[in-house]
Amino acid sequence: MAYFDVASSAPLHPVARQALVASLDEGWADPARLYREGRQARLLLDAAREAAADAVGCRPDELVFTSSGTRAVHSGMTGALAGRRRVGNHLIVSAVEHSSVLHSAAAHEADGGAVTEVPVGRGGAVDPGAYAAALRADTALACLQSANHEVGTEQPVAEVAAACRAAGVPLLVDAAQSLPWGPVEGDWSLLTGSAHKWGGPAGVGLLVVRKGVRFAPRGAVDERESGRAAGFENIPAVVAAAAALRAVRAEAVAEGARLRELTERIRARVPELVPDVQVVGDPVQRLPHLVTFSCLYVDGESVLHELDRAGFSVSSGSSCTSSTLTPSHVLRAMGVVSEGNVRVSLPMGADDAEVERFLDVLPGVVRGVRDTLGAPVAGGGGGGDADAVTVDALGTSCPQPVIELAGAIGRVRVGGTVTVLADDEVAAVDIPAWCWTQHHEYVGERPADHGTAYVVRRSS
Amino acid sequence: MAYFDVASSAPLHPVARQALVASLDEGWADPARLYREGRQARLLLDAAREAAADAVGCRPDELVFTSSGTRAVHSGMTGALAGRRRVGNHLIVSAVEHSSVLHSAAAHEADGGAVTEVPVGRGGAVDPGAYAAALRADTALACLQSANHEVGTEQPVAEVAAACRAAGVPLLVDAAQSLPWGPVEGDWSLLTGSAHKWGGPAGVGLLVVRKGVRFAPRGAVDERESGRAAGFENIPAVVAAAAALRAVRAEAVAEGARLRELTERIRARVPELVPDVQVVGDPVQRLPHLVTFSCLYVDGESVLHELDRAGFSVSSGSSCTSSTLTPSHVLRAMGVVSEGNVRVSLPMGADDAEVERFLDVLPGVVRGVRDTLGAPVAGGGGGGDADAVTVDALGTSCPQPVIELAGAIGRVRVGGTVTVLADDEVAAVDIPAWCWTQHHEYVGERPADHGTAYVVRRSS
Repeated sequence: MAYFDVASSAPLHPVARQALVASLDEGWADPARLYREGRQARLLLDAAREAAADAVGCRPDELVFTSSGTRAVHSGMTGALAGRRRVGNHLIVSAVEHSSVLHSAAAHEADGGAVTEVPVGRGGAVDPGAYAAALRADTALACLQSANHEVGTEQPVAEVAAACRAAGVPLLVDAAQSLPWGPVEGDWSLLTGSAHKWGGPAGVGLLVVRKGVRFAPRGAVDERESGRAAGFENIPAVVAAAAALRAVRAEAVAEGARLRELTERIRARVPELVPDVQVVGDPVQRLPHLVTFSCLYVDGESVLHELDRAGFSVSSGSSCTSSTLTPSHVLRAMGVVSEGNVRVSLPMGADDAEVERFLDVLPGVVRGVRDTLGAPVAGGGGGGDADAVTVDALGTSCPQPVIELAGAIGRVRVGGTVTVLADDEVAAVDIPAWCWTQHHEYVGERPADHGTAYVVRRSS
Repeated sequence: MAYFDVASSAPLHPVARQALVASLDEGWADPARLYREGRQARLLLDAAREAAADAVGCRPDELVFTSSGTRAVHSGMTGALAGRRRVGNHLIVSAVEHSSVLHSAAAHEADGGAVTEVPVGRGGAVDPGAYAAALRADTALACLQSANHEVGTEQPVAEVAAACRAAGVPLLVDAAQSLPWGPVEGDWSLLTGSAHKWGGPAGVGLLVVRKGVRFAPRGAVDERESGRAAGFENIPAVVAAAAALRAVRAEAVAEGARLRELTERIRARVPELVPDVQVVGDPVQRLPHLVTFSCLYVDGESVLHELDRAGFSVSSGSSCTSSTLTPSHVLRAMGVVSEGNVRVSLPMGADDAEVERFLDVLPGVVRGVRDTLGAPVAGGGGGGDADAVTVDALGTSCPQPVIELAGAIGRVRVGGTVTVLADDEVAAVDIPAWCWTQHHEYVGERPADHGTAYVVRRSS
C-alpha cells in the first residue's frame, strides 16, 4: 500500500508518537494549577511553545496552540477582523484559499462585511500587483495561503506582505501546507498551521499573532492560551506536534530535494504515459512533494477507486469536498480541467519504487475508466465537414458532456462549431478548460431551453 | 504523592491509554476520504460515536465530538440560541455554572441578549420552582449543570428539564462533572461533556443535540461532525475518550460507593480535626468523589502550597480561577466562606490510606498558616463590654479582615457591634459568611471614606 495523500493528513511521525506517548504521563494535568502535576504540565507546554515558535520564526508569546488548523484560521480571521473593525469591514482573500478561509469569509459577508476575492492565473498564483490593487482604505484584513493545498503552487507571500505592510493592513498567511518545509518568508502579521499536516497528531493547530497586531477574540473566551484558544490545553498532543515539526524541519532540505525529483518525474512522465492529461499548478514555484494532474474523459471517483484497488491512496478535486466530488473551487479559479483530477502528495520517506509502480499502474487505470465511459480515442481529429453540430448531453454528468464534445469536434470542419447542451454545472468549468488544452476556441455559453448551451469552434 | 484534583483533570485511564496508542496507527487519516486509510479512520470514528452515545443515552447521530468540553458548551449555547432567535433572545443560567457557560452568557449579553441568573441556596442547588419561574415567552435557551464542579452538589435536572419541556424551552445540561458516574436523568435537550474529566485524553468534548431541537451553528463551519464542530477529527483521542467512558462506567457503581464513603469520612472528620471549618455543598445530593471545605482565617494559596509540599494536589476556589485565586463565583453565590477553601476530588482508585494521611496532615497545615497570620484562637469568645468597636483592615487582603473581625468580636458585649473597614472585595463574601458560621448577626455594609464598612452584631 502506498499512501500518497499527505496534503490531507500525514501519518504520525515516529518522533511525534514517542513524544506523545511519553507526555501522556506528565502532561494530563491543568497547567494553570500550582501543584506538582500542574507545574510539570506547564513546563511541557512552555517548552513546546518555544520549539514551535522557533520553527515558525516568531516569539513564543506570539504563538498559541489551537485545537486544529481550521480553528486557528477561524479564530485568527475573526479576531483580526474584530480588532480592526474601526478601520472598516473589508476582507481580501485569494480565490484559491483553503475552505476554512473561504468559510470564514462567507461568515464575514453574512454578517455584513465586504469581501474581495483576488483571482489567480492558470498556474494557481495570485498576481502581487492585482492583490495590492485590492487593498482599500477600509480593508481590515488580507489573507493569502503560503502554498496551495490542491495544486502545490507557492504564492508570492513576501511581495503581498510588503504591499499590505505599506498599506497598514495585516496579512494572515495560512501556512498549513508549507510549514513542514520551512518558515514563511516576508513581513506577515498573522500565521496559521495544522500539526497533522506535518506528521504531528490531529487536534493541534497554531495561531501566530505578531506583536502590535490589533486582535480582539470574538464570542466566549477563557483565560487559556492568552485568551485566544478557549478550552483545556491538549498538552501531550502539543508536545508531539512541536517535536514533529522540529523533526521534519531537520529532514526538510534533503527530503525536499528528493521528493521534488519524484514529483518532477510524475509531472514529466504522466503526460507521456497517459494521453489527454493536463498537469496543473506552477511547474517551478511549487511545494516539493505535491503534483496534480487532470485526465480528460474520466471521472475522479472512478480513477480514485481503481487506484485504491491497486494500493494507492490519492485524492481528487478540492481537498475538502472530495467525499462529495463536487468541482474544486481551486481548479475552477485556475480555469483548468477538473474532471479526472488526481492529486499526489508524497509523505516524507516516500518510496521511489512505489512512485514507479504508480506510473506503471496509472495508464491502465485511466484507460479502463475511459473504455467504460466510451471516451474518444486520443488524437482522433477527424475530417468532418459540417458547419455546425449540436450535441445533447442534458441529464449526463461529468465527464460525459466533455466526452460528447470531443466526439463531435471531428465532425465539423476547421472553423465550424460544436454546441453542447448540458445541465451539469461542472461543464461550465471543464468545457472551456478542455478547449484550452485541446487548442480549440471557446466561443461562449448561453442559457438554453434546458440547461446551458456551450459553443466551441474547431481551430485545427 | 496523592493527586486529589480529578475535578480539574483526571490522569489518563489505562484503557484510554491503550486505545489511544492502538489507534494512532489506524486513525490518523481523513475519515471523509474514500481510500483504505480513510475508511479505516471512519470505522473507528463511527464506533467511538456509538459507544459514547450509548453511555450518554442518545442516538449516535445526535452526538458530535468537539475539541473540548468548553468548545462543546460554547458551540452548544450559541447554536441553540441562534436556532431559536425568532422566539427571543432570553437565556437562563444558574449562578453556579462552569465558567464556559457564564462566558457564553456574557458574550450573549454583549451581543444584546438578555440573561437571567437563577440563584442557588446555601447548599449550592437551584430551587426548581425558582428556575421554572425564570422561564419567559422569549426564552430561547436554559442551562443547568448536572452537578457543581466546585462543591459537588447535584442539581435537580430532571425537574428543571420537565419545567423547560412544558414551556417549550430547550435545556442544555453541562454534564462535565457527572458523566463518569452515569447518564443524566430527565428530558433534557442538549448535553455537553469533557473527556479529560473522566480519564479520557484532553482535546475531546462531546455535544449532544436531541433530534427536533432547533440548532443553527454560528460563524464559519465546515462539513465535519454534522457541521457542528469544525476542524479535522482527532480520531485516536476520540476512540480513547469513548473507551475510557465505557471503562469508568463499568466501575462507577462500586467505585462510587467506595469514594462516597471516603468523602463522607472527610466531611465528618475535618470539622472534628480542624477548628473553624465550614464544609460546603449538599451533604446528600452530591457527587460521590468530591468534597469541599473552607478554613477560616487562612488563605487558600498558603494551604495549597503546604499541602503540595506534603504531597497532596488539591484545588481551591473556583476551578477556573485558582491560578489567580480570586474569589470563587460559586462560593459567593452560595453565600459560604471562600477563604481557606479546599476542594478534594478523588480519582477512581484513590487510596484509602492516602485519604487517612491527608486527614493526618491537614490540621498541622492549617494551624501553621493560622499561626503565621495571627489568627484568633478557636472558641475564644471573650468577655468584652464595649458597645461598639471599629477595626481598620484597609489595605489588607483575605483572610486578614475576617481575622481582625474575629479578634474584635470578643471585645464587645453581646448585642454590641463590630465595624470592619476593608477594601478587599473578598470581605463582601467572607464577612457575611463568617457571621453565618459563627452565629453572629450580619447587620449590613455601607460605603466608607475608604473602602467599605461592614457591621456585625455579637449574638452570643
